[in-house]
Amino acid sequence: MIVNGIHYRTIWIDETEPRVVKIIDQRYLPFQFVIEEINSVEQMTEAIRDMHLRGAGLIGAAAGYGMYLAALNAPRHSLTAFMESIIKSGSLLKSSRPTAVNLEWAVDRQIKSISEAESEFDARIQTAYQIAKSIADEDAEYCHQIGVHGKEIIKRISNQKNGEVVNILTHCNAGWLAFVDYGTATAPIYEAHKQGIKVHVWVDETRPRNQGARLTAWELGENGVPHTVIADNVGGHLMQHGMVDLVITGADRVTASGDVANKIGTYLKALAAYDNNIPFYVALPSSTFDWEINDGIREIPIEQRNADEVEFIEGWSNGEIVSVRLIPENSSAVNYAFDVTPARLITGLITERGICSPSKEGILSLYPEKRMR
Amino acid sequence: MIVNGIHYRTIWIDETEPRVVKIIDQRYLPFQFVIEEINSVEQMTEAIRDMHLRGAGLIGAAAGYGMYLAALNAPRHSLTAFMESIIKSGSLLKSSRPTAVNLEWAVDRQIKSISEAESEFDARIQTAYQIAKSIADEDAEYCHQIGVHGKEIIKRISNQKNGEVVNILTHCNAGWLAFVDYGTATAPIYEAHKQGIKVHVWVDETRPRNQGARLTAWELGENGVPHTVIADNVGGHLMQHGMVDLVITGADRVTASGDVANKIGTYLKALAAYDNNIPFYVALPSSTFDWEINDGIREIPIEQRNADEVEFIEGWSNGEIVSVRLIPENSSAVNYAFDVTPARLITGLITERGICSPSKEGILSLYPEKRMR
Repeated sequence: MIVNGIHYRTIWIDETEPRVVKIIDQRYLPFQFVIEEINSVEQMTEAIRDMHLRGAGLIGAAAGYGMYLAALNAPRHSLTAFMESIIKSGSLLKSSRPTAVNLEWAVDRQIKSISEAESEFDARIQTAYQIAKSIADEDAEYCHQIGVHGKEIIKRISNQKNGEVVNILTHCNAGWLAFVDYGTATAPIYEAHKQGIKVHVWVDETRPRNQGARLTAWELGENGVPHTVIADNVGGHLMQHGMVDLVITGADRVTASGDVANKIGTYLKALAAYDNNIPFYVALPSSTFDWEINDGIREIPIEQRNADEVEFIEGWSNGEIVSVRLIPENSSAVNYAFDVTPARLITGLITERGICSPSKEGILSLYPEKRMR
Repeated sequence: MIVNGIHYRTIWIDETEPRVVKIIDQRYLPFQFVIEEINSVEQMTEAIRDMHLRGAGLIGAAAGYGMYLAALNAPRHSLTAFMESIIKSGSLLKSSRPTAVNLEWAVDRQIKSISEAESEFDARIQTAYQIAKSIADEDAEYCHQIGVHGKEIIKRISNQKNGEVVNILTHCNAGWLAFVDYGTATAPIYEAHKQGIKVHVWVDETRPRNQGARLTAWELGENGVPHTVIADNVGGHLMQHGMVDLVITGADRVTASGDVANKIGTYLKALAAYDNNIPFYVALPSSTFDWEINDGIREIPIEQRNADEVEFIEGWSNGEIVSVRLIPENSSAVNYAFDVTPARLITGLITERGICSPSKEGILSLYPEKRMR
């Protein structure tokens, strides 16, 4: 997507500097646009752990590139030492965000490919490079396909409204910045916008980490998409008054029967959409499905993050990012990071293969190969 | 209620200084406890307009005391000049928060009483003092009665749980700080706590102005009530997992058929409570009823406040209150202040006369004199 008029991915290698991986350091957004150079697997591990980058797709791509850096810098005096180093680097990367499924998957894919490559070191490094690039390209292509399918929903509503602006509410950042390009929830919006369909996005602030106010608002703005930031409390009121035509969110994990774990607060917006008869879609690449579980509320453990994220907030003041205290010294807070939206509240799932109903049969109609399990 | 171990109201006159009205300047809470001395009706107008104090009940009391200060300082060369000054002061006070119903009511009550009092100036001033005190006392007594009635709900749940902690979720600040004493949503909680019933309060942060995180958390803490601050997004998740036994909120306006306008986001919590079969009560003094309207969503206009409140936030940093920017420079925000919760989602209304169902018949059963209208 576009930043300051130039096309970027969230992670890339410049042809002129093939030993350096570049990322956008998202900790400074939207106040500063900082590109970080990553030279080692240790540095990539730190970038993932300390959330210089975040989001399922982007973490997977970062792990792929991290393993390429691991191969580049592995000892070359014996194949055993080389492979031992690769495996150790993989463990290091996996430890950075233990619950990120895409991270584990990308690391394992790299280890398998590097160990099965031709025996020269350079060929193995070249393989690691190719796999890293493939993981990133696949992520971008899947998101692009989500955009192509999801755009049809927006187009239909636009037609029903005789071309008037389609108002779309989104929660958190399931945008370009959470993937390599396009995003999931944002992909249909970018695709519609590109094709000249009039859209406007209500951006939920998304307390406590404000990914909506900081990241989604920024990326929509840089790409010229009209949008307005709202407190998380506002969506229900907008829906009651006909000011929302469609909700699209991302997902962190979707069960085989269509329950959706996503950023805390998603469930409240799904309830409001259902109460006001407004379509509520969830956009996800198929890697987000957890084929082993069905009942999201009972089976998906919800991560509690540090209460500091509720007790303090970061903002911009006098040219720097400042953290300020929000609650009394003697009060405490808790910080549940996700909630589960039951399938009954969801209109449909937008995947790279198309749109399906949030049900076992609906999902299997797009992924029939999973029927065999 | 208690601050630093001492009993305070939110507005009062010390016997030793009968010409000075004292208020807690709420702009500095919870970071600093500042008592402001108000010496004139102009100063009181400013305190209301600039939100040194807020909340329906407290604004009414402040208007009452403001009119006492107006009488104290009115010219005494002729009764006409005295009463003209009183009426002008009333208009000034009314202009400070044009939509506050209690403000207008308190001013008009004072003007009527002062004009009907015995003709000596001192008697009129004494009347103004007595009326101001009555308005404050009535507010405190109504809130106390809400506490007495509402406590029964908490007690019943406590009994059902064999004395285990009753978890109560509240939104915004309908606490002591919004009234003269006790509050509305908090009154049943304080009353239950005083009687040794184990309670714990989930305090919604309440973006954008954070009245929950700043005011409700502070007043509960000062009064020894266990509580935890949560982001506004969290309540639904807690309810799904059996961590909320009861929701109590306040109200800004309640229609004759029980629709409730309250702080933005209340509707979302009511939806979640309904979806999880959790009782959802609204606590209010009868002055909050608007007997003229029925359909809250269609008939109650929703105030849009300054978008600055969404774009920036105040917090505590290095010993001072600092405002930091939260959204990109090129993004904008909107700020709807209230939403309407339809009566169908509400379990009951807790008033000074008792508890009733949120319906025309339910409300009239407590206020039969309104049937005559």
